Amino acid sequence: MATRGHDAADNRAVRSGAPARSSGAETKAAIYSAAVDLFAEKGYAATSIRAIAAAVGIEPASVYNHFSNKEEILYTIILNSTEESIALIEDYVAHAGDSPAERLKAATKAHVIFHCLNHKTAHIGWSDLHSLSPALYKKVALVRDHYEAIFRRELLAGIESGQLVDTNPTLAINGIIGIGSRAAVWFRPDGPMTDAEVGEYYGDFVVRALRK
Amino acid sequence: MATRGHDAADNRAVRSGAPARSSGAETKAAIYSAAVDLFAEKGYAATSIRAIAAAVGIEPASVYNHFSNKEEILYTIILNSTEESIALIEDYVAHAGDSPAERLKAATKAHVIFHCLNHKTAHIGWSDLHSLSPALYKKVALVRDHYEAIFRRELLAGIESGQLVDTNPTLAINGIIGIGSRAAVWFRPDGPMTDAEVGEYYGDFVVRALRK
Repeated sequence: MATRGHDAADNRAVRSGAPARSSGAETKAAIYSAAVDLFAEKGYAATSIRAIAAAVGIEPASVYNHFSNKEEILYTIILNSTEESIALIEDYVAHAGDSPAERLKAATKAHVIFHCLNHKTAHIGWSDLHSLSPALYKKVALVRDHYEAIFRRELLAGIESGQLVDTNPTLAINGIIGIGSRAAVWFRPDGPMTDAEVGEYYGDFVVRALRK
Repeated sequence: MATRGHDAADNRAVRSGAPARSSGAETKAAIYSAAVDLFAEKGYAATSIRAIAAAVGIEPASVYNHFSNKEEILYTIILNSTEESIALIEDYVAHAGDSPAERLKAATKAHVIFHCLNHKTAHIGWSDLHSLSPALYKKVALVRDHYEAIFRRELLAGIESGQLVDTNPTLAINGIIGIGSRAAVWFRPDGPMTDAEVGEYYGDFVVRALRK
């Protein structure tokens, strides 16, 4: 299901929302992609609109045809990648059958795979989330609540069915999220394991930790 | 064993290496502490020596009596906090008895507790590590290898003794590290659980995931 290649989804994210391939949509996609690279490499605060424009090969003023300001670019990156990860997780869960333990495993696996394949946007979401103004932060927080709610739903179903231990769901979910975030740091696409193998490992790890 | 109160260890870190409380040592500690606050809040790149000096109430030039440059402050923060966490983990392991599973649980617990209590330095280590020049990065990487080696030692002892599954130690260790890093993000000292309770939960979580 997941596209192979590091940060493949980073590019998919902006393309999926773009209209038919006009030059404007291509420029917007190029700005988005350059911002992902620069924010991940230098951090949000150290990256200027001028630097983003230079990476794309356009004038700084042209960036404002597509984004109101630098913060809107950051917001779009964090929102897109969170929503993409949610879509991947729901897709895996939908194909996992009825067993809550299997569904929780599938959700964990997809979460880990997404982070393996999108290490740049994951790093930005982790490091620069606090750079958003309160209004935009609040919007992102709502989508992140939805993210966590998927895991909570499957975990509670597993507790109710008697398959999983009635433990502290909030801590369990934060553990799962932390495992994925860390994978975004250490995973290398040319390493000894594929993203799917890493996802499989942690899916089993989490279910073992929570199975009754 | 761990001091209660958020970021208590951040301050301890610099004091422990300081000579008798001269005014110079106090100024150095104040610079260190202000830098921890500013790097955690605004990020390394967005924080100037001037801003650090202003927070302490000294001239920018005075900062250079204690640190060669901004990078040396960052390096000192990351190195100190990594070494402090190693000391806490080894202390917990030393009191955990002979059972490898109990020792791995103790190591995980101490790692999580440290991250609960030191969210600022943990965030800096996570977000700004890549701002270090290759030479200093390499020194930090060596200490981080030592950090991981503690978990590897206990995990391999558990595999050898037959207590723990012969799984992928590198992935298991990265999972443990990710769980702690995430705790630094969500843990609140005024929340419903203490750092020790959170550490206990994840110690059990990890051992359940790895027990044969």
